[in-house]
Amino acid sequence: MGLGTVFLSEVLGTGMLILLGSGVVANVLLTKSKGVDGGWLLINFGWGLAVMAGVFVAYKSGGHINPAVTFGILVSGAEEYASGVAVSVASTAVYISGQMLGAFLGACAAYLAYKNHFDADEDEDKKLAVFATGPAIRAYRWNFVTEVIGTFVLVIVVLSFAGTPHGLGPAAVALLVVGIGASLGGPTGYAINPARDLAPRIAHAVLPTGYKGPEPVADPATVAASAGPGTVRTPKRKDSDWSYAWIPVLGPLVGGGLAGLASTLLF
Amino acid sequence: MGLGTVFLSEVLGTGMLILLGSGVVANVLLTKSKGVDGGWLLINFGWGLAVMAGVFVAYKSGGHINPAVTFGILVSGAEEYASGVAVSVASTAVYISGQMLGAFLGACAAYLAYKNHFDADEDEDKKLAVFATGPAIRAYRWNFVTEVIGTFVLVIVVLSFAGTPHGLGPAAVALLVVGIGASLGGPTGYAINPARDLAPRIAHAVLPTGYKGPEPVADPATVAASAGPGTVRTPKRKDSDWSYAWIPVLGPLVGGGLAGLASTLLF
Amino acid sequence: MGLGTVFLSEVLGTGMLILLGSGVVANVLLTKSKGVDGGWLLINFGWGLAVMAGVFVAYKSGGHINPAVTFGILVSGAEEYASGVAVSVASTAVYISGQMLGAFLGACAAYLAYKNHFDADEDEDKKLAVFATGPAIRAYRWNFVTEVIGTFVLVIVVLSFAGTPHGLGPAAVALLVVGIGASLGGPTGYAINPARDLAPRIAHAVLPTGYKGPEPVADPATVAASAGPGTVRTPKRKDSDWSYAWIPVLGPLVGGGLAGLASTLLF
Amino acid sequence: MGLGTVFLSEVLGTGMLILLGSGVVANVLLTKSKGVDGGWLLINFGWGLAVMAGVFVAYKSGGHINPAVTFGILVSGAEEYASGVAVSVASTAVYISGQMLGAFLGACAAYLAYKNHFDADEDEDKKLAVFATGPAIRAYRWNFVTEVIGTFVLVIVVLSFAGTPHGLGPAAVALLVVGIGASLGGPTGYAINPARDLAPRIAHAVLPTGYKGPEPVADPATVAASAGPGTVRTPKRKDSDWSYAWIPVLGPLVGGGLAGLASTLLF
Repeated sequence: MGLGTVFLSEVLGTGMLILLGSGVVANVLLTKSKGVDGGWLLINFGWGLAVMAGVFVAYKSGGHINPAVTFGILVSGAEEYASGVAVSVASTAVYISGQMLGAFLGACAAYLAYKNHFDADEDEDKKLAVFATGPAIRAYRWNFVTEVIGTFVLVIVVLSFAGTPHGLGPAAVALLVVGIGASLGGPTGYAINPARDLAPRIAHAVLPTGYKGPEPVADPATVAASAGPGTVRTPKRKDSDWSYAWIPVLGPLVGGGLAGLASTLLF
Repeated sequence: MGLGTVFLSEVLGTGMLILLGSGVVANVLLTKSKGVDGGWLLINFGWGLAVMAGVFVAYKSGGHINPAVTFGILVSGAEEYASGVAVSVASTAVYISGQMLGAFLGACAAYLAYKNHFDADEDEDKKLAVFATGPAIRAYRWNFVTEVIGTFVLVIVVLSFAGTPHGLGPAAVALLVVGIGASLGGPTGYAINPARDLAPRIAHAVLPTGYKGPEPVADPATVAASAGPGTVRTPKRKDSDWSYAWIPVLGPLVGGGLAGLASTLLF
Repeated sequence: MGLGTVFLSEVLGTGMLILLGSGVVANVLLTKSKGVDGGWLLINFGWGLAVMAGVFVAYKSGGHINPAVTFGILVSGAEEYASGVAVSVASTAVYISGQMLGAFLGACAAYLAYKNHFDADEDEDKKLAVFATGPAIRAYRWNFVTEVIGTFVLVIVVLSFAGTPHGLGPAAVALLVVGIGASLGGPTGYAINPARDLAPRIAHAVLPTGYKGPEPVADPATVAASAGPGTVRTPKRKDSDWSYAWIPVLGPLVGGGLAGLASTLLF
Repeated sequence: MGLGTVFLSEVLGTGMLILLGSGVVANVLLTKSKGVDGGWLLINFGWGLAVMAGVFVAYKSGGHINPAVTFGILVSGAEEYASGVAVSVASTAVYISGQMLGAFLGACAAYLAYKNHFDADEDEDKKLAVFATGPAIRAYRWNFVTEVIGTFVLVIVVLSFAGTPHGLGPAAVALLVVGIGASLGGPTGYAINPARDLAPRIAHAVLPTGYKGPEPVADPATVAASAGPGTVRTPKRKDSDWSYAWIPVLGPLVGGGLAGLASTLLF
């Protein structure tokens, strides 16, 4: 199979992953959406089934849709990334660049699907959360540890799938991701995938996600007192929290690499 | 296989889909029902498993139960809709008319199952929601986009199923629909199926779903002041929101068609 | 296979069904239980997975664990209830009596598992709900209709399983029951199984489920005023709502029978 | 297969089980975690999918990851614990010691993943609940009965899996554990596994899980009045509830043993 096919396949699969994954967060967080306040389990199923959909459509390339999985397979010493796709520097680069591009495009598609709700919502923190993960308690060292552990679980279990006969197909990793989210998503929102976090974060930085609803009617006296006449109201536009961005990239790569190493000892 | 069998199969499958799908909305929305306020994930599982049941019983015709799926298969250039059913104008018409009739009958069955609750509920908006989808934020262009995206996901993933060996059977599309609902259902309630929306909307228009509970005891003074003596109270009967009805028909057909096209390039 | 084996198998399977099914209701309803107020979807999964467990352990007899399923198979004109078990008056009686006994024993086991919580709970309505279904709006004709429809769905879909290749095993009917509960359980609590309702109702009538907690300290003045001196407090013991009991027996049998008939035309 | 491999496999599998299982409880209970108050069904899916992950990675040893399962298989009279692993005193000891060590390590990993949240949470009861089960109503005899019943269900259904062809693989036991938790977890929190409870309880006793947040600013007057000057605030450190610890060890062993016995009669 040509690397062009691999590239396209990973673009499609990772795009599907992020479209549905960012979608469920938008559904639960953005104002007036029908799934508002749907709960953590809804988010877990949304992301898990996003993985299922992504793996199904990316079947030609083995459905990695995650650089940490690609890296874990590389470290595990496998000879092929998928049937007919040899492990090499070139194929690794093709997988990861396809994943990054797909994740960016998927985030854009999720934005379009929820366009009205982005325009109508004034809470810029929630909008960022649709695209990128953030810590519940900011403490970089431990946030990093959590992402390493979560991704280790993802990749070591994926690498164990071949050991047990089952007919679950892509539902196996879907259920696994539901479980990781339920169990290990609490501290950092379980990126466990560098492409899942970095590319949508870039999308957040470039997309016009800011509030576009009607300007709130302010009490003229208050405005005069606080800012003086002539002030133009600028919607607050949240930055994309770049200081945190390295954790959901590096943590998953370390976790995936450790899982690849462990698999050579254990399986 | 004769087209009569296909017709009956799609009537049965789409009827099952709408009976269970409208059922879960009734359960969550209608007053005094045991599942009231059961949450978005309950609705997602209800619809997803409705699809599973519908596909199981419609196995003879391949379980399309959705004109957007039929149209996507047509556009994808497949030669058969199901084993032994050639793609043709006649078979396409049989599929779609069976789906429409089944969806209408399924909506009637859901009405019968929840008859008491329709009679006892005064909120006519909720009753319409049992039958037909509606936008969280009414903006036809973007509502259309959301339906196109959601149905594209449905049909492209369904068309990818054959690429991956798995033993999920109809549970694969059930889980997929749970995921689409969780992730992309927020803005429009995910019709992603013209028959699912239009035929139950017609059922809503013809069924006697209005409030039949005891007339509220009004304060005579208020009544006299507001309407004068001799006023007869007429229960408000909500119309079926026909101005929106084209979106969940055309959006899914466009999304399904685009997925059919994309599948010819990708798979 | 001997009918003794069939009997034992159905006792075990239906016992498992009711132990887990009554269990989840107890968990959600009874005071101080860890799952209190866990929601309708929790109840749906509890019952659905109860069916899965019951069908697994009753594999020898084909895992009917429901007289409506047995009756539906009978009406469908099948020659065997399970591999090596011919349809006959005797085998039908063995299935149904095993199901009734198992359901009774399962209800007793659920009572034992939640003994503390029965003793500590003062709400006798909730205790009855652990054992038997009841209507959200009491209207016998329509409650009957709802049970017919729900059981028709159950049995017609079960009879369609053979038509579609899949590897779901007992998870197929588990998911189906999750879906029926989500979608059609709102009006009557989805008995859809005569043994599931009648035998636990009998168990409720004979088990000492009444409140055994400490007698509330009453203000002596109030007691004196309302009841006079010398009154002995008797815990209210709710009857088992026998006037409703025929609906979840007859409705499922009619629904299962109709599904058996329909299957002869459709499949 | 060597017993060293069995040991390593059970360490890995049981570690995975407890990492994800304790993880979901931490997510739902510990302050500021993203899954706080996620509900009982979230906990059920977390534990069920923890079992799935554990069974997948422990495929070499048959994925017991539970002394009650190992004991049940022993009692059932099977000749092998897994393909190529004969039942013997030595192999039994290897399984159980591997399970205990794995469960301890998994609890430590869950602690690391939620380190920030342990440090920030003042509620020491909830922290203990992350590691070990406790009764909703403390009554040792009935708590024991509940654990016996729950584990009987687990082991008898697991022993029945071979009787029914299905392609669920480890998802079968995952769904079963979701169901047991939903249905029988209310009174005691469903340990149903001696290693799951005892080893994490030991971890709780040795790990520094106490509150490390900022000392609350006390009103000096109140402090002076209640404790006098010079008092040093000591964070309350909850003990590990050792008086209850025997129930989730002995109950599951009895339940698993009874299921092993029953299986020799029934299957």
